[in-house]
Amino acid sequence: MLKSTKYNTILYFLSILAFIMAFIIVIPLILAFIYQDGNNIYQAFYYTIIISLITGTILKLPTDPENIYIDLTTAMLLCATGWIIVSLLGALPFMIGIEKSFIDSFFEAVSGFTTTGITVFTGLDLMPKSIIFWRSLMQLLGGLGILTFFLLISTRAQGETWQLFSAESHKINVSRPVPNIFKTVKILWMIYLGFMFLESIILIFLGLSVFDAFTHSFTTLSTGGFSHYDASIAHYANSGYSHYILIEYIITFFMFLGGVNFLLHFRFFTGNYKSIKNNSELKTFIKLILYSTIFITILIIILNTAGNFNAEEIFRKTLFQVTSIITTTGFGTHDINSTFFPAAARQIFLVFMLIGGSVGSTAGGIKVMRLNILGRLFKREIKKIYLPDHAVLPVTLDQGIIDSDEINKLTGLFSFWLVLIVVGGIITSIFSDLDGWQAFSGMFSAMGNIGPFFFSVEKMASLSPIIKMTYIIGMLAGRLEILPIIILFTKKAWEK
Amino acid sequence: MLKSTKYNTILYFLSILAFIMAFIIVIPLILAFIYQDGNNIYQAFYYTIIISLITGTILKLPTDPENIYIDLTTAMLLCATGWIIVSLLGALPFMIGIEKSFIDSFFEAVSGFTTTGITVFTGLDLMPKSIIFWRSLMQLLGGLGILTFFLLISTRAQGETWQLFSAESHKINVSRPVPNIFKTVKILWMIYLGFMFLESIILIFLGLSVFDAFTHSFTTLSTGGFSHYDASIAHYANSGYSHYILIEYIITFFMFLGGVNFLLHFRFFTGNYKSIKNNSELKTFIKLILYSTIFITILIIILNTAGNFNAEEIFRKTLFQVTSIITTTGFGTHDINSTFFPAAARQIFLVFMLIGGSVGSTAGGIKVMRLNILGRLFKREIKKIYLPDHAVLPVTLDQGIIDSDEINKLTGLFSFWLVLIVVGGIITSIFSDLDGWQAFSGMFSAMGNIGPFFFSVEKMASLSPIIKMTYIIGMLAGRLEILPIIILFTKKAWEK
Ligand SMILES: [K+]
Ligand SMILES: [K+]
Repeated sequence: MLKSTKYNTILYFLSILAFIMAFIIVIPLILAFIYQDGNNIYQAFYYTIIISLITGTILKLPTDPENIYIDLTTAMLLCATGWIIVSLLGALPFMIGIEKSFIDSFFEAVSGFTTTGITVFTGLDLMPKSIIFWRSLMQLLGGLGILTFFLLISTRAQGETWQLFSAESHKINVSRPVPNIFKTVKILWMIYLGFMFLESIILIFLGLSVFDAFTHSFTTLSTGGFSHYDASIAHYANSGYSHYILIEYIITFFMFLGGVNFLLHFRFFTGNYKSIKNNSELKTFIKLILYSTIFITILIIILNTAGNFNAEEIFRKTLFQVTSIITTTGFGTHDINSTFFPAAARQIFLVFMLIGGSVGSTAGGIKVMRLNILGRLFKREIKKIYLPDHAVLPVTLDQGIIDSDEINKLTGLFSFWLVLIVVGGIITSIFSDLDGWQAFSGMFSAMGNIGPFFFSVEKMASLSPIIKMTYIIGMLAGRLEILPIIILFTKKAWEK
Repeated sequence: MLKSTKYNTILYFLSILAFIMAFIIVIPLILAFIYQDGNNIYQAFYYTIIISLITGTILKLPTDPENIYIDLTTAMLLCATGWIIVSLLGALPFMIGIEKSFIDSFFEAVSGFTTTGITVFTGLDLMPKSIIFWRSLMQLLGGLGILTFFLLISTRAQGETWQLFSAESHKINVSRPVPNIFKTVKILWMIYLGFMFLESIILIFLGLSVFDAFTHSFTTLSTGGFSHYDASIAHYANSGYSHYILIEYIITFFMFLGGVNFLLHFRFFTGNYKSIKNNSELKTFIKLILYSTIFITILIIILNTAGNFNAEEIFRKTLFQVTSIITTTGFGTHDINSTFFPAAARQIFLVFMLIGGSVGSTAGGIKVMRLNILGRLFKREIKKIYLPDHAVLPVTLDQGIIDSDEINKLTGLFSFWLVLIVVGGIITSIFSDLDGWQAFSGMFSAMGNIGPFFFSVEKMASLSPIIKMTYIIGMLAGRLEILPIIILFTKKAWEK
């Protein structure tokens, strides 16, 4: 038995994660049988299940289920190690089944579970279907994974764990949906999977194969963006699907849903419409999408950069790309670097990549709410100058006061976010021949869990393992909102 | 007489600024006579003096010197309008003497007084010498201008004016140099001008003409970066000056001095060495320059990107460019976009442009101290997680506590800084054919008072007046640290 409560707690929960993985891998295994993917693939999933079970058992052996205590440090360590162990196990089918290198398999798994969507695999259309399915399934699991983790951990943690992430905690803290957290998590997953099935069924009706419909729904709602078509969603227009216009609008709508705080979806389905109507983050999120789409559409028409496309096509392509980018999904129906989009549009895209979706959603980026907080903070600073009585002016959002501590945390996170992007960019420059702008874009895409970057997919696949390892850390740091990854490398956090 | 104390105060000080301008313009007028620049130029300076005197008189007429009160809002409005009126008057010699358009002349004057160093004038080598001299002199005046403004205003202001700018106030507040602020300002200018004369004399000894030595010293210590040679400082190597190596090292050294907090220079000359030794900002500033120079030099040698250059040449070129960029001077001895510098070096340059020099120096950018504060803040956030007793941990710097309010202000400033760069980039994209990256670089250079950008000087000169106006606002916002420019456009600040 482990003496340290901290190590005991971490190993205990990691073993549970390993067992869950063994259980989940059964799904792609069944798919492998259905699609007759061959012995290599069956074995890959068998071995993954066995290794997961062995890992779970070994991790569980020294632990004592009575000696569990989750403080903030433990929760963070658990968060970081949890994502890593799940990605390591999730990488096994790629290593065993399609003989990819360790680093590429691990990269792909981290890109999956963090819903980043950068791929280092080429020839996806020729791959076994169960492998493609597993790639998409990882994104589905990762999408709601982080919110689940926070909610579950919170049942066992002290009050401070609610504070794990400034803005997240703000939302959850103010209005904890129901007393029973397990019930909340269950309902959230039901909503999430409900959306996923709804999208799949609609897409099947619109002519997609069952396989395509599910794999793409997985990566729509998780804002992951994996697609096994080189042309991404443009594939359906290119390949002559008669309903491709509706397909594009439907995927746009579900990407949008993936970018909304799932606690708002929860409230919608539990009849609490009022708090949705007054939610400032949702309002800003919708405004950002609508205004920028209208602006860019008009700009394209005025500047006449679209060639033969008509107004509806321009609007649809713009709406799709804007939604895909701000939700950090990374699907595409038109190359965002083509001259179709004027330079101003491309700049807006870049800013939207940085912003990302809502807090509590499956999206990456800095998150719209944090942007709102910064905006409020700035207004307060201005007011402080011209208001003569120098009253203590709080920063408020949705009738709640954001305390200085929360703003400090946000500032700290944001500055470290910048530092990591810079370090990642410099490492990329040193170990590759990419130019400065391209080098930055790789780490930027990884940290924001976005997907697209400003060099070719083949180039990404061929990068040095040192760069890939850097991006892996970047993807994890982005998804886990930095602090758990820092704590992972902080010696003092492991003590005692 | 004006009833409003606010308007009375602002007009009173603006009139003083106009009179000072009339007085200063006498210097380039004398130069014009010495260099026989012709009647057009004499008239340009005459008219400028007369218009300045008339402006000063008109502004002074309705004011009452007894009815002066400077609160924070008034100080900010004064700061913004002061820089604008001085630039408007300073633009007159360009409009009258060399028949430049209003927008180009105003742009050049703002670029001068804010020490940005972006030029929209072409054919500088053919221009009358007194005009070139005036361009450089504006930078000399602007360089120490902002610190002077804060210090002078503070004598008449309430305590809160000390808080004008978070980090600035932090330094000044903690250790107000001497009780008599006028004496301090006088000593600071003596140090500044002393450095300037010293550099000029050394450069004359090294073979520069008296004219070249002074105009370049003006723009070295002010970290302004105006040069009337297309090749900037590389001119001296290119034109066969035998001491060009020493010239480059000397200019590097004085750029460095310009990037140091002038209150530290003050302490040095008043014998307070201890506080210099313990100054964390100075330490970080020196470390950033040294470590990056060594790193880039080694990288160039390893990657063999320098061709025929020897190690000393590589080191010298790197040191010069690093110092020029981090101090936001913008002088060059080697094109930073050439393959001489590997991509990693160019990324470091970009980051250094963002960082800028020290607080209280003549440099632009975010400032090294703010970077230090962010670093401390982040460390504190990490400590808060693993320290079990949850003590209130202050963010400390140089034995002083940085309070949350100051960090909030910093965050507000920084976020608005980003917003302005984005807005400027989008405006540039809409009204020009520059690509996304180039479009950003223009506003980035303006906001950081840097100088260099990623498109040609001819292109800058030919940009739409809308873009030039945007950059003018950007240069002013960068130099005045944003808040005064926001207050200028805030209706409520003008009330009462
Ligand atoms: K993504
Ligand atoms: K400059």
